[in-house]
Amino acid sequence: MIIMKSEATKEEVANVVKEIQKYGLRADVSIGAYRTVIGLVGDESKIPFSHFTVLPGVKEAFMVETPYKLISREYAGMSGPDIENRVIKVGDVEVGGGEPVFIAGPCAVESKEQLFRIAEGVKKAGAHILRGGIFKPRSSVHSFQGLGASGEEGAQQALGWLREAGDTFGMPVVTEIRGEGQVDLIAEYVDLIQIGARNMYDQDLITKVARKQKPILYKRHFGAGIEEFLSFTEYMVAEENKDIILCERGILPLGKGKSYSRYTLDVTAVPVIRRETYLPIMVDPSHAAGRRDLIFDLSCASIAAGACGLIIEVHYNPVEALVDGQQQITPDELEEVIIACRRVHEAVKYRKNRD
Amino acid sequence: MIIMKSEATKEEVANVVKEIQKYGLRADVSIGAYRTVIGLVGDESKIPFSHFTVLPGVKEAFMVETPYKLISREYAGMSGPDIENRVIKVGDVEVGGGEPVFIAGPCAVESKEQLFRIAEGVKKAGAHILRGGIFKPRSSVHSFQGLGASGEEGAQQALGWLREAGDTFGMPVVTEIRGEGQVDLIAEYVDLIQIGARNMYDQDLITKVARKQKPILYKRHFGAGIEEFLSFTEYMVAEENKDIILCERGILPLGKGKSYSRYTLDVTAVPVIRRETYLPIMVDPSHAAGRRDLIFDLSCASIAAGACGLIIEVHYNPVEALVDGQQQITPDELEEVIIACRRVHEAVKYRKNRD
Amino acid sequence: MIIMKSEATKEEVANVVKEIQKYGLRADVSIGAYRTVIGLVGDESKIPFSHFTVLPGVKEAFMVETPYKLISREYAGMSGPDIENRVIKVGDVEVGGGEPVFIAGPCAVESKEQLFRIAEGVKKAGAHILRGGIFKPRSSVHSFQGLGASGEEGAQQALGWLREAGDTFGMPVVTEIRGEGQVDLIAEYVDLIQIGARNMYDQDLITKVARKQKPILYKRHFGAGIEEFLSFTEYMVAEENKDIILCERGILPLGKGKSYSRYTLDVTAVPVIRRETYLPIMVDPSHAAGRRDLIFDLSCASIAAGACGLIIEVHYNPVEALVDGQQQITPDELEEVIIACRRVHEAVKYRKNRD
Amino acid sequence: MIIMKSEATKEEVANVVKEIQKYGLRADVSIGAYRTVIGLVGDESKIPFSHFTVLPGVKEAFMVETPYKLISREYAGMSGPDIENRVIKVGDVEVGGGEPVFIAGPCAVESKEQLFRIAEGVKKAGAHILRGGIFKPRSSVHSFQGLGASGEEGAQQALGWLREAGDTFGMPVVTEIRGEGQVDLIAEYVDLIQIGARNMYDQDLITKVARKQKPILYKRHFGAGIEEFLSFTEYMVAEENKDIILCERGILPLGKGKSYSRYTLDVTAVPVIRRETYLPIMVDPSHAAGRRDLIFDLSCASIAAGACGLIIEVHYNPVEALVDGQQQITPDELEEVIIACRRVHEAVKYRKNRD
Repeated sequence: MIIMKSEATKEEVANVVKEIQKYGLRADVSIGAYRTVIGLVGDESKIPFSHFTVLPGVKEAFMVETPYKLISREYAGMSGPDIENRVIKVGDVEVGGGEPVFIAGPCAVESKEQLFRIAEGVKKAGAHILRGGIFKPRSSVHSFQGLGASGEEGAQQALGWLREAGDTFGMPVVTEIRGEGQVDLIAEYVDLIQIGARNMYDQDLITKVARKQKPILYKRHFGAGIEEFLSFTEYMVAEENKDIILCERGILPLGKGKSYSRYTLDVTAVPVIRRETYLPIMVDPSHAAGRRDLIFDLSCASIAAGACGLIIEVHYNPVEALVDGQQQITPDELEEVIIACRRVHEAVKYRKNRD
Repeated sequence: MIIMKSEATKEEVANVVKEIQKYGLRADVSIGAYRTVIGLVGDESKIPFSHFTVLPGVKEAFMVETPYKLISREYAGMSGPDIENRVIKVGDVEVGGGEPVFIAGPCAVESKEQLFRIAEGVKKAGAHILRGGIFKPRSSVHSFQGLGASGEEGAQQALGWLREAGDTFGMPVVTEIRGEGQVDLIAEYVDLIQIGARNMYDQDLITKVARKQKPILYKRHFGAGIEEFLSFTEYMVAEENKDIILCERGILPLGKGKSYSRYTLDVTAVPVIRRETYLPIMVDPSHAAGRRDLIFDLSCASIAAGACGLIIEVHYNPVEALVDGQQQITPDELEEVIIACRRVHEAVKYRKNRD
Repeated sequence: MIIMKSEATKEEVANVVKEIQKYGLRADVSIGAYRTVIGLVGDESKIPFSHFTVLPGVKEAFMVETPYKLISREYAGMSGPDIENRVIKVGDVEVGGGEPVFIAGPCAVESKEQLFRIAEGVKKAGAHILRGGIFKPRSSVHSFQGLGASGEEGAQQALGWLREAGDTFGMPVVTEIRGEGQVDLIAEYVDLIQIGARNMYDQDLITKVARKQKPILYKRHFGAGIEEFLSFTEYMVAEENKDIILCERGILPLGKGKSYSRYTLDVTAVPVIRRETYLPIMVDPSHAAGRRDLIFDLSCASIAAGACGLIIEVHYNPVEALVDGQQQITPDELEEVIIACRRVHEAVKYRKNRD
Repeated sequence: MIIMKSEATKEEVANVVKEIQKYGLRADVSIGAYRTVIGLVGDESKIPFSHFTVLPGVKEAFMVETPYKLISREYAGMSGPDIENRVIKVGDVEVGGGEPVFIAGPCAVESKEQLFRIAEGVKKAGAHILRGGIFKPRSSVHSFQGLGASGEEGAQQALGWLREAGDTFGMPVVTEIRGEGQVDLIAEYVDLIQIGARNMYDQDLITKVARKQKPILYKRHFGAGIEEFLSFTEYMVAEENKDIILCERGILPLGKGKSYSRYTLDVTAVPVIRRETYLPIMVDPSHAAGRRDLIFDLSCASIAAGACGLIIEVHYNPVEALVDGQQQITPDELEEVIIACRRVHEAVKYRKNRD
């Protein structure tokens, strides 16, 4: 769509039309009371809109079509029957299949003992997938960066523990990747590769991960709009990998004064994303809240809003955790969250299936 | 708390201590490895912190105590037994008393017939309190401003209809005040006075409303932090009016690109505010979403997060509504929302009572 | 502009066209490759776009025309010759007339002596207009609210001092209004009425102030987009008062962690607003920064960006100021700012006159 | 600093003290009127504050010391004489040395001819360093990704042109790196390696780049606070590379409604960062504005605020540019910007040298 300035001349309009035709599209000119508007007929993605903004007489030029056609529910619907929600298999676990899925485990793997003790706890509490951080993204170079930072060998050992813990307790496993150097290594050990919020925009990394053809847990950056989040998802789908579980984990808090939570959980994003794409959307209340005492409430709210599951940080003794102790809950608390979330899901699920 | 610069001299520290003593507080000086930190013992609210920032050698000066002591749960707890949640009576309806309360009605009152028809519908759907906008805050001077804009007489007539509709269908009524000129008029007709998000910062107005000693529904501004929201609430409580129902209605959306909802519902604010104050916190999903199709999901999420109730815009025919048709749901849809929210509340309430 | 869903039927399109015609506009239907787009020919402001979003088959409905036609440079240009920048006379001072104008004075008037001493200082430093706060908007009910809070008599006395100080030192005067109760009183004493950021959205107040037909200094709210700011300005212009000086004073800071300034000065807004409207745009670096040591840099940057002037808080002894001492500069520092700003203005003015 | 809850017991305080001592620090306990505050004496960075938040009786735990000691002006000052601004040599060009430095060139290198023609133009206009994008970060996988996307050979060829253009016209060269796979290749060809806003958080990448021991142009992410930006800078300085030029390029726009610029230029960040660190801070007005017509104003504002230089996108024919034509200016326009910026710098430089 091209909106001309009110003072645009006929020649300027004609020039824009000519430019549009260069790209193989048809121009549809509407002459209004105040100004002329030019619609584009054809594949808008072929048009570099920024060019058009520079042409004389043009006020605005923008895309009407969605920039994420590959994962769009509306476009998918056009090319055949209505597209069902995509169900993604992580090991034996079905994500997006109707029942909420719970991913749980320590923020950071600290030792084999710690990991196994937590794995046992979260399994008993009802979790389906085991998480454990090995390459930790941290704001400060002076903080503990995870066992992966101790070199190739340390990383392999920790990944091995994660694999073993998963197998021992019957859970597929997930860990976060932080840089391109870890793609092969991580893909070898886990069932699900997590791309964290800070790497959301890292198109070289996400492309490389997608090529592994394994399921991906892809987190929204805390400063990213939904359109941007879904547009970047297309980088992975363009690699023929549609096993992407989207994850909302909180956006930047707004307003002055004290922050009462680490981020602001964007619960609105859950039903919005469910309507835009057939890919499942999960929530991480631990990083959003950054506070143990909010996990229960935010978990129930997320499931009520239609999230396909939750990823929650768990430690048997949060005081001792090397990273983010303040946001980890105990296995007993996790069990309470899971029970409540299942009840909430029962309360609303008839509607979700109808949407 | 005063944090000195690393290069601050002894004289500068002594000078700060002297200044603190001027205000009747005691200074507690800690000499650290890098710098000196000075704690304040006494009533911090007597100190104008901005003064201290200007003193030579001072790096930062900030309050450790909360700025909203009157409504703070922690301070209330110090002055006697733990404070219970405040239950506010609006007519016969108890807000904050354990069961979720539903306020519903048209965005704008358009005619007596429209109002009565909607009032009947929302009552049947299970609503407890009737809302109806008469003085509409609008972004454009060129838009319909509500029947209140037609002058004193028109305003009185519309308020009379609201009162009558409430009495006819057995519901207390609420309407929004927009300016100081409407305080007496509105207070005469309604059971609950709504102060909208755009007037949150209007300290002259909120003080004047509070003096009416009627219950108030006080909405958070879309750019306000929680601390600021609670600090402004103190203006009303300082007038000896503690019947304040707080209301979250969405904050500014973050990120570039298309906005998929009018605002971003800050669900995290619900459990945070419940922990900070004994005043009840409600949610307005209609203005947060600005989309009819998100109301169900956001309503359930809000109740799951611990909201004491919801305020929802309803119209029997959203297409015909003069204002905000796109965010209004029908009475039948309201009924579905209320039933689902009650089920969600059942699923989580054991926990809310324990928090 | 109405964008239909890809799956919209012919009947749905026809229905939208019929609806548009009801409002007296003409519909211009473009059938594209993926979807149909309907343009509106006629006065878009007659259309309640929210209605159209609710109609079956509609994906999006939005206005193409600007919502602030009365003050828009583009629309003004259409109705005759190109509109010149509006020059506003405040007493003898011309704002928007080419040379930068400096408004200065204490954050809060504390006493006659304090005010006169500062007035003398800022005059000597080169200021043109004297500011002095009498009704102070404050975040906490427990803070000093200005001399205006001491009742009608106290307010009149303080306003009298301001008038007298202005007359004595040959400067027109400005003070901030905070509530509708102060309109008559303030209009009697000052040459320019300031509407603060927190009251930007207060349409009853701004309308009432505009009716006084005096020049207005209108500050952007820290959470307001530019479109919203300009739309609300139309409330005043609709009262036939075009003597509105717009003022940017900082928006909410973004990002996590420590805030190094009170707000973020939106310098980009200056050239943007100059292109959108013929009304002049000024900057308040004091409230944006909240730090004395940033005033020089932000002042020069604002003038470089094309601001028509600055409003700066000044105190001979910031340590003693009752309000916001940390952001006030001394008269000597003001003089340095004014000299530098004039040099910066000289460096860029040839271009401003060309834009 | 640890702030205890008002109801904390003596045992809880003692327990916190014991925990602090475990980390080798000394605890300094202040018993106030409402609550106890515990200061830490020693190296705070050894303390995982999140642990302390979980301890019984603790309300808040936070760091008083800055998290970016390595680049902090205050800490540098403590370890010896006051640290001078760091001057960084990029080829023969001194960045941060007093005179503003201009980096200019095309957004994307499209061909050898295009690059040479622009290089010649920007040199003539007064630019010091040549920029040219080869690996383009793009929001959409369907957009042109730069010549670097055509494989190793294409990337080498384009980098070769950049090197040759720089040598031909006597300018050092800079290009943006996007992924770890490009580190060796890019380091071989350029004098300055740019890390773009989207990669700001990519700690694996920035660490790897820093190890090349070449000067780095490091852009702030559009959602990053200043503290976070400086903390991530420490990842590079920890690799013993202090040749980091910081760059502000706009933060997320705030507020509802139309965006008039791509981002909001955070001019306040310039003087703030100059006070926090001795590293130089530059501005990119092209990406901040996203509009050609704002470049002049924002450039002058940035220099007025104290920026050490500018990076500006230039194309001889913006309409033809393959990427971001709407924000590129012509060489003639660049010349006008440079002349004006130099005049602005003259107007304010006496002060910058004094700060």
